[in-house]
Amino acid sequence: MPLVSIDQASEVADRLLAAAGVPAENAVLQRDLLLDAEMRSIVSHGLLRLPRLVERIANGVADPVTRGRHEWTAPGFLRVDGEQGLGPVVAQAAIDAISARAAEQGVAVAAVANANHIGMLGFYADRVAEAGKCLIAFSTSEALVHPWGGRRAMIGTNPIAIGLPTGDGIFMMDTATSLVSMGEIHDHANRGAPIPPGWALDGEGNPTTDAAAARDGAIAPFGGPKGYALGLAFELLLTALAGSAIGREVKGTLDSTEPCTKADLFIVIDQELAPVAHFVELLRNEAPADGFEGVRIPGERGRLLRQKALAEGIEIADVTWSRLRELAGPAESIKD
Amino acid sequence: MPLVSIDQASEVADRLLAAAGVPAENAVLQRDLLLDAEMRSIVSHGLLRLPRLVERIANGVADPVTRGRHEWTAPGFLRVDGEQGLGPVVAQAAIDAISARAAEQGVAVAAVANANHIGMLGFYADRVAEAGKCLIAFSTSEALVHPWGGRRAMIGTNPIAIGLPTGDGIFMMDTATSLVSMGEIHDHANRGAPIPPGWALDGEGNPTTDAAAARDGAIAPFGGPKGYALGLAFELLLTALAGSAIGREVKGTLDSTEPCTKADLFIVIDQELAPVAHFVELLRNEAPADGFEGVRIPGERGRLLRQKALAEGIEIADVTWSRLRELAGPAESIKD
Repeated sequence: MPLVSIDQASEVADRLLAAAGVPAENAVLQRDLLLDAEMRSIVSHGLLRLPRLVERIANGVADPVTRGRHEWTAPGFLRVDGEQGLGPVVAQAAIDAISARAAEQGVAVAAVANANHIGMLGFYADRVAEAGKCLIAFSTSEALVHPWGGRRAMIGTNPIAIGLPTGDGIFMMDTATSLVSMGEIHDHANRGAPIPPGWALDGEGNPTTDAAAARDGAIAPFGGPKGYALGLAFELLLTALAGSAIGREVKGTLDSTEPCTKADLFIVIDQELAPVAHFVELLRNEAPADGFEGVRIPGERGRLLRQKALAEGIEIADVTWSRLRELAGPAESIKD
Repeated sequence: MPLVSIDQASEVADRLLAAAGVPAENAVLQRDLLLDAEMRSIVSHGLLRLPRLVERIANGVADPVTRGRHEWTAPGFLRVDGEQGLGPVVAQAAIDAISARAAEQGVAVAAVANANHIGMLGFYADRVAEAGKCLIAFSTSEALVHPWGGRRAMIGTNPIAIGLPTGDGIFMMDTATSLVSMGEIHDHANRGAPIPPGWALDGEGNPTTDAAAARDGAIAPFGGPKGYALGLAFELLLTALAGSAIGREVKGTLDSTEPCTKADLFIVIDQELAPVAHFVELLRNEAPADGFEGVRIPGERGRLLRQKALAEGIEIADVTWSRLRELAGPAESIKD
């Protein structure tokens, strides 16, 4: 895999987005979001999404310019029509608006419909926490997860992220309510590798260890009935608040032709916070269980990887990098 | 097990609480909370908690009168000092206050410190949803759960509940971030039954199937690292917002002598909601996976059990019912 500097990756992404008609300010946000995931080794939410995004712009299902239409239905509640804007552009504009409001009111909420895929929620949680506030963020997605006891995909992977300042840095966690991502299923299928029992059902709703069969089926919720209950609660709450599509009617998070109809929800809380960094430190130093190297703090491995990537560059999958360069045309920073 | 009518159980609970100095209005709330759990068959959060609560009042670590001290630090943010009040009394007063505020502002939040155990979070989520609003509720507890990769209990069972109107009734889910409850471990130990592998560690931090050994150890988070990340995020967020104790410093949720130092967090959202009942109905009618009877909707089994209990009464564990009657003295409604 080619080792690419962050400058090179940024330039290629920027050229590509500029050619697609994305204004510079929006391009920086979209590029930073994807690069951030790439640097944290969350490849499924990284640069491989860029070619499809460009197709979506070309197909008229992603508007490169709009930041979304804002309507304050109450002093603390912002309804956002994403107008098919780029996910991070609409999301960040909503978060900026409710962050300013939360500074006055203590809390503010944004419910977003009709924005494109907003990527890794942790990106926003990190930024809000760095700014000294707390963020709880949710998203729905196309139905990929089977309800506990069901046979087919009915519920999104519906992630949650939480970020807050700890008094000495920040804490951020970000997890889907699915056991694994559809990206991981595809990755196994591409390698011809089986998937572990319990990960997925096939297209007929039967348990399978065949990754290729699982692509047409459904992923399990994480943690069985509890993860199902959480994922369902997020699906209902977000849909009710955003007025978006639900279940199998959600489209446009994976393809390049359908308008995106999922929902996003952001809750920003701005209050004086008691320090909790000492507890994070305590956990970090806990004696490891047999077979473990230690207790991991969510978000920290990603931050270390990002630091390393900023200094040393990132390895990008050959197929992704070739495709991006092909789309972007010759870039000054890249010598062949 | 004796079959007890809801009237009988209520009368015994009321007598007991009145004798402990609990004003009638507060007693009704505390009794309804415990009875609600009992009727839903969540026995660990039911009437068996009453004798300990009475002990806590006698020991001066539960104040039967206060509804908590309210301070609005911002128009949408309520800080509550529970003043060691009864959990449901302090919680409901906080929820009432932020519900009124959310009607104006769209959203309001309460962070509660120093209240006694507030019981099953679903009780509040149900009530708020019945009143036409959305509730997201969280609580911390004494450290009973081991961090993923760790050896000892460091994190609370930290439940989350979400309630909302669906356009045709309500949806409510309520789950701890632990795999099981400490009550289930005790139940296995009392019956001399082993626990399944993966449920818990013993006092030395080694995996065990011995329920008695697990009582001195730690319960697993649900869903492995994902549930751990969620439970930890809730612990950090609630502690930071409520200024309460954290980790192993949290006391008073299980014993009868320590002031209660956990935190509770309530987010009420009051907005026009898109209907989602059709999707719940769709799920209910999904074809069941092999080995399942069907897809369950979280909260519904409990509601059915409650209806049945209201009509037919409840079976209460002998030891619990005898102890309650002994503490309450003779009750008119009960013929021996």
